[in-house]
Amino acid sequence: MTPAPFAVADADLALLTDLYQLTMLQAYWSEGMQKRATFSLFFRRLPPGRRFMLACGQQHAAELATRLRFDAHHLERLAGTGLFDDAFLHWLGAWRFRGDIWTLPEGTPVFANQPFMEVEAPIAEAQLLESLVMNLVQLETVLASKAVRVVMAARGRPVVDFGMRRMHGIDAAVRGVRAYRTAGLEGTSNVLGGLRHGLPLRGTMAHSYILAHDDEREAFRAFARRYPGTTLLVDTHDTLAGVRKVIELMAEAPETGVGAIRLDSGDLGQLAREARALLDAAGHPEVKIVASSGLDEWQIAALLEERAPIDVFGVGTEMGASSDAPVIDLSYKLVEYAGTPRLKHSPGKVNPPGRKQLYRRYDEAGRYAGDTLALPGEPLLRPLVRGGEVTREEMALAAGARERVQEALARLPAALRELDPGDAGYPVALSPGLDALGRRLQAPPDQSG
Amino acid sequence: MTPAPFAVADADLALLTDLYQLTMLQAYWSEGMQKRATFSLFFRRLPPGRRFMLACGQQHAAELATRLRFDAHHLERLAGTGLFDDAFLHWLGAWRFRGDIWTLPEGTPVFANQPFMEVEAPIAEAQLLESLVMNLVQLETVLASKAVRVVMAARGRPVVDFGMRRMHGIDAAVRGVRAYRTAGLEGTSNVLGGLRHGLPLRGTMAHSYILAHDDEREAFRAFARRYPGTTLLVDTHDTLAGVRKVIELMAEAPETGVGAIRLDSGDLGQLAREARALLDAAGHPEVKIVASSGLDEWQIAALLEERAPIDVFGVGTEMGASSDAPVIDLSYKLVEYAGTPRLKHSPGKVNPPGRKQLYRRYDEAGRYAGDTLALPGEPLLRPLVRGGEVTREEMALAAGARERVQEALARLPAALRELDPGDAGYPVALSPGLDALGRRLQAPPDQSG
Repeated sequence: MTPAPFAVADADLALLTDLYQLTMLQAYWSEGMQKRATFSLFFRRLPPGRRFMLACGQQHAAELATRLRFDAHHLERLAGTGLFDDAFLHWLGAWRFRGDIWTLPEGTPVFANQPFMEVEAPIAEAQLLESLVMNLVQLETVLASKAVRVVMAARGRPVVDFGMRRMHGIDAAVRGVRAYRTAGLEGTSNVLGGLRHGLPLRGTMAHSYILAHDDEREAFRAFARRYPGTTLLVDTHDTLAGVRKVIELMAEAPETGVGAIRLDSGDLGQLAREARALLDAAGHPEVKIVASSGLDEWQIAALLEERAPIDVFGVGTEMGASSDAPVIDLSYKLVEYAGTPRLKHSPGKVNPPGRKQLYRRYDEAGRYAGDTLALPGEPLLRPLVRGGEVTREEMALAAGARERVQEALARLPAALRELDPGDAGYPVALSPGLDALGRRLQAPPDQSG
Repeated sequence: MTPAPFAVADADLALLTDLYQLTMLQAYWSEGMQKRATFSLFFRRLPPGRRFMLACGQQHAAELATRLRFDAHHLERLAGTGLFDDAFLHWLGAWRFRGDIWTLPEGTPVFANQPFMEVEAPIAEAQLLESLVMNLVQLETVLASKAVRVVMAARGRPVVDFGMRRMHGIDAAVRGVRAYRTAGLEGTSNVLGGLRHGLPLRGTMAHSYILAHDDEREAFRAFARRYPGTTLLVDTHDTLAGVRKVIELMAEAPETGVGAIRLDSGDLGQLAREARALLDAAGHPEVKIVASSGLDEWQIAALLEERAPIDVFGVGTEMGASSDAPVIDLSYKLVEYAGTPRLKHSPGKVNPPGRKQLYRRYDEAGRYAGDTLALPGEPLLRPLVRGGEVTREEMALAAGARERVQEALARLPAALRELDPGDAGYPVALSPGLDALGRRLQAPPDQSG
């Protein structure tokens, strides 16, 4: 028998949506509602443990949005649900996204209640993007926002992604590497992700390799001869005994030029100091120390605080699914239809109506001083898609996301660079015009209608 | 320009691995190490907030494992890294998994320090599966284990998945639905996931649909006429005013036969009681109440505790990435090579060596009384792959995973059915033979070698 394919082909992504998007589309179609609408993508609250999020994934989302098509096979499957008319399905077969998408550049720090994408198109085009765009943007934003914290905690020391096995499936494992590259990681163990998204491949060895040999020394020798300059994993039996065996190996076979040792268990700070002392005493200050073992930004900060002589951090489990904050409560809200601003009346929720523009202010030192959310004007939000095509300008910008993160980190106020989420207090103000519009629509709705 | 594809084709999955797997393979190949090895997949600790995990995803992992191939394009990309010899790459082009995989049936509750898969093959075949198998099995196991808690909390009321937008990318969103089906969910909003994995599609409407209309009543009327028996979302402006409009609509257009109302904000228990009273007083006891809005198992349990008259729960954000426990710290450990049991000496860690068998004992009421981990004998672990081919028997078993979960839940001791993780205290014992083998290998390793 031929098992079903695992992979979700790009061509099938039109069906990767919530059912109500399609039933609403048919209702809009039946009612003749085809005016332009604006949907705004934002989050109401930062996830616990975050002072900012790095916007990421908009480029992928836009590329897909502009390529979504329903083919005959999709229409047939939808017909099988019994929910859709033939005439509607015929119309759906010709569905294209021909609208505009405005966005912050990828890699921009973003805060609560700021639109970081706005989609403007005939309502049936903008509505259908909701589920898929949220799924795609959330993944990369969540992973980049975790990874940048790890990078900040490492204070310039390289961080390498070892998390493929903890990531949520195939797509997360591959696109996640793109988010990690944007966030500033130095390398990844993930072969396909690294090759596809241009992050250098890194790797050491596993305990299984040591255990498959009858003797640790023999395993070190075989591996180091095969890969001069490699990293040897020294904690399988006894870490410091392992380090001594590495030193003996370098005396016996100097041509192996062992590049680093890896510590993967125990008190990493103490073991790093003792291993460093052994290596230095043996005349090997050039051998680096790589540490891994359930590391996160807090543990890295603590290790550097105690001056652990660790040169490279390998991070996996805690970063792979952004365990402390694996989701953002993204909203994709209708804010304008047929030229009229729209607002859901939610007690206690800030949800400014209308199309928006976002301005970021800088202090004298060039750091972010605060943002102002306004009605459309000059851009921080930029057009990512115009009339259904990804803009060339944005294609070029996407390539600079990693560099933009580095520049942005330098411009973050000191309080936002702390790992502790605390009260970040970054000011996001409404412009006078947007404030007035919001107040007008916040007036109690008409209950008599 | 043609953008790169998003999708990861099945054919590319051979490269979805950690780099060290490939460098270790080349080292084994260079050293002529090709004896059979056994790797054991287990977790040392239950994630916080879990009393058991539902094993899930082994079937997908096994299907992929038996189909992994390195094609010319893969080999060329690997050659480009400069790490691999041509002769090794030629050998890798002929690589196949021809070994055996033993597993618990999908949907079986599993506890700490139990192997739930064992892979037995020449070491280069078993080693290479590590990263991908862990990625695949973790995703479905994590999601099924969260979802089954939500199902238990709902005490027989249907639970519907609304989480696609919060899941980690495309593969998680599609295979996640399979895990949800196994865990006992009643339906999903996710069109592609539901169609592919046979979970019924469900959907209501979004706030945007209401807001795109100038009047809520008009939106209800249009949608209900288009979809007789549908669910109307009543909380866009004022929940109880929305319920009254639904009642008026049913008086005005009885043919719409509204099936349910959905509450998506506010005090769901109080609003459900007030909405139920309004509907009953108007002679509509048949109209059901669907509740959503950031629900998890705890909130569902609290709502049912206060006797909220909710008929269906829609669950998304908290279930989509299993937010409270998004990863399991899975291990894939070498436990035997060349017929010799292998053991990493980890202070304080239980990691029994050797190939294993698992026995589950039942009390007089048919509930799980405890497990015994033993050396190979009669099976609870079953052969999933034999000589590189998925066994037909296991194909048949996979189809029954959803039913198996329901049966398993009835057999769980009462303490394990509590939502509170507490001290679960499920006994997992070592058989005398396995205990003796572990003690023998736990003896201090030879430091002189």
